[in-house]
Amino acid sequence: MTIRIIPAIMSGGAGTRLWPVSTEARPKQFHALSGGEASLFTETALRVKGAAGAVTFADPLILCNARHTALVRAHLAEAGVQPAALVLEPQPRNTAAVGAIAAALAQEIDADALVLLLPADHVIADAAGFRAVIERAAPFARERIVTFGITPDRPATGYGYIKRGERLGDGVFAIESFREKPNAETASAYLAGGGYSWNAGIFLFHPATLLAEFSASADVRDKALAALKAAERVGDEVRLDAAQFAQVPSQPLDIAVMEKTARAAVAPCEIGWADLGAWDEIWRVSPRDAGGNAVQGQAMALDASGNLLRGDGIKVCVAGVSDLVVIATPEAVVVIPRERAQDVKLLRELAAKL
Amino acid sequence: MTIRIIPAIMSGGAGTRLWPVSTEARPKQFHALSGGEASLFTETALRVKGAAGAVTFADPLILCNARHTALVRAHLAEAGVQPAALVLEPQPRNTAAVGAIAAALAQEIDADALVLLLPADHVIADAAGFRAVIERAAPFARERIVTFGITPDRPATGYGYIKRGERLGDGVFAIESFREKPNAETASAYLAGGGYSWNAGIFLFHPATLLAEFSASADVRDKALAALKAAERVGDEVRLDAAQFAQVPSQPLDIAVMEKTARAAVAPCEIGWADLGAWDEIWRVSPRDAGGNAVQGQAMALDASGNLLRGDGIKVCVAGVSDLVVIATPEAVVVIPRERAQDVKLLRELAAKL
Repeated sequence: MTIRIIPAIMSGGAGTRLWPVSTEARPKQFHALSGGEASLFTETALRVKGAAGAVTFADPLILCNARHTALVRAHLAEAGVQPAALVLEPQPRNTAAVGAIAAALAQEIDADALVLLLPADHVIADAAGFRAVIERAAPFARERIVTFGITPDRPATGYGYIKRGERLGDGVFAIESFREKPNAETASAYLAGGGYSWNAGIFLFHPATLLAEFSASADVRDKALAALKAAERVGDEVRLDAAQFAQVPSQPLDIAVMEKTARAAVAPCEIGWADLGAWDEIWRVSPRDAGGNAVQGQAMALDASGNLLRGDGIKVCVAGVSDLVVIATPEAVVVIPRERAQDVKLLRELAAKL
Repeated sequence: MTIRIIPAIMSGGAGTRLWPVSTEARPKQFHALSGGEASLFTETALRVKGAAGAVTFADPLILCNARHTALVRAHLAEAGVQPAALVLEPQPRNTAAVGAIAAALAQEIDADALVLLLPADHVIADAAGFRAVIERAAPFARERIVTFGITPDRPATGYGYIKRGERLGDGVFAIESFREKPNAETASAYLAGGGYSWNAGIFLFHPATLLAEFSASADVRDKALAALKAAERVGDEVRLDAAQFAQVPSQPLDIAVMEKTARAAVAPCEIGWADLGAWDEIWRVSPRDAGGNAVQGQAMALDASGNLLRGDGIKVCVAGVSDLVVIATPEAVVVIPRERAQDVKLLRELAAKL
């Protein structure tokens, strides 16, 4: 007996710290950023396609900004994936709204299937490991909302942490608590103590379970479902009602549901996961030359070390510098130390005035 | 009685160390590089226009690569300057050939006039001082070939030096010797000893004198004049014969004539002269913000110091770096420490393979 899973791919990220490659018109998930040729979106679609042992992936739901419809279709085509539906958001309303809508649409398609809700912009180097942990978690995902916990390999301060509770079964645990993004000291303590995972923001659940567990945030669910009910459906497109969708409170699913429900679970895993939020993380996961330079696109380094160099449609030529991020597109060039990569968001705002 | 001077503007420089702004299609003299709005070429044409005390500048001869004809006409128009002739070179053959051709053409226009042979890509901040030293040198320029010697303000190793000899008159000296580009130690000794000037490569002479003093390099002169004789003349254009011009030995006028003649003179001067050969020199002469950043075009700096930042048709956004050159055009971006600015020529060659 196989368990049927409907992937629900969330393509709502803006990627402002990956400017100038990531832009509003074409945010980060539509770029090849993990070292290969395919975009993060295409890689995500490929990752949840076909069968994986005891589970079978159905055609996915795609939840994206309406302005990215053409991009989504192109990147799905590249993956050879046919969507069950494209849910077009008039504007971003965060993951709680998206989760409720995905659950309701999945019930329409197959009330018995599970839903795998996952962002379109994550890197998962070990796709087989990812499918294996899904297979392991699936038997628990009818009664529980299972989130995937990444075993930390460093005291990262950029992620939320999950402390596991009692063991529910093979590699699946109840959740003792969610912890906000910690400071460096706390993160080190988490790492030393064990029992903590990074919260990857990927969820496996039965639609009825998720919708029921919105009880503490019923308003989010109800307004999201109202926007879905009022949606215009054309072909495979579900065009959410703009006026109704604007009324939905913008909340992360973690806040609206996961931190409040007694039915959360975590499946710890090591699957080469990364959320490429900023350029220093791109450098960390990218292949590098003998000098430690990650060189992407039309770029070259001379007597240089530890740099991330990327030229998209423009040549990047660097000599004699260390540990910099140099990113260029025909729109703009960013030069910043790797350790300040978070400040690209600020540079993007300042550049708008140039 | 005024002395009539025919300017002969040499627009032959390639500016390969100012890539990617300076390109073969549009080399450095056709860009605004001295901090203002006008190109170096336009500034040069304006500098030798009209009357200056006892001297009067006639319409200039322009000697340029044939492929830059349209650029030259546009930048002359911007200066409001009508050329006496455009001498179109099928390829660059260095300044000795150019000097001989300019002298011969000047004789056609006015056998009595002097010729001021000057590069189109120099900066001279003190235009009035420049015209004053020309006025001072003019009375000596019938018997002598006068070169202009820039009083050094630092032990630069990138220029040739001139050691002055006996005084000929007010601010004009015979030349004891020409010195090649020195090392730092020698340059410091020159500076301490006094009596040395940088060789600016600007010459004032009577055509007959220059042509006569080619005696040690008669071959250069004779072949250059043969190419001129075979030139096709159309309107104000003098299109040098390609086959004949290719036969002319490529020599600098300093080597072919100045270092050999007994009739050289030097007029030392302080006129805010700079030969903007590389980006560090652009930084040196440019206005800078409180952090020492020279910011040109579409560019911005955050927590950064001592940088030259320039965006031509593309935004340059920099944070947290020091003493770098960051230059961007829609073609390419260069990032290099200021002190390694000479290596841009190498980067340009390597970039051709990208």
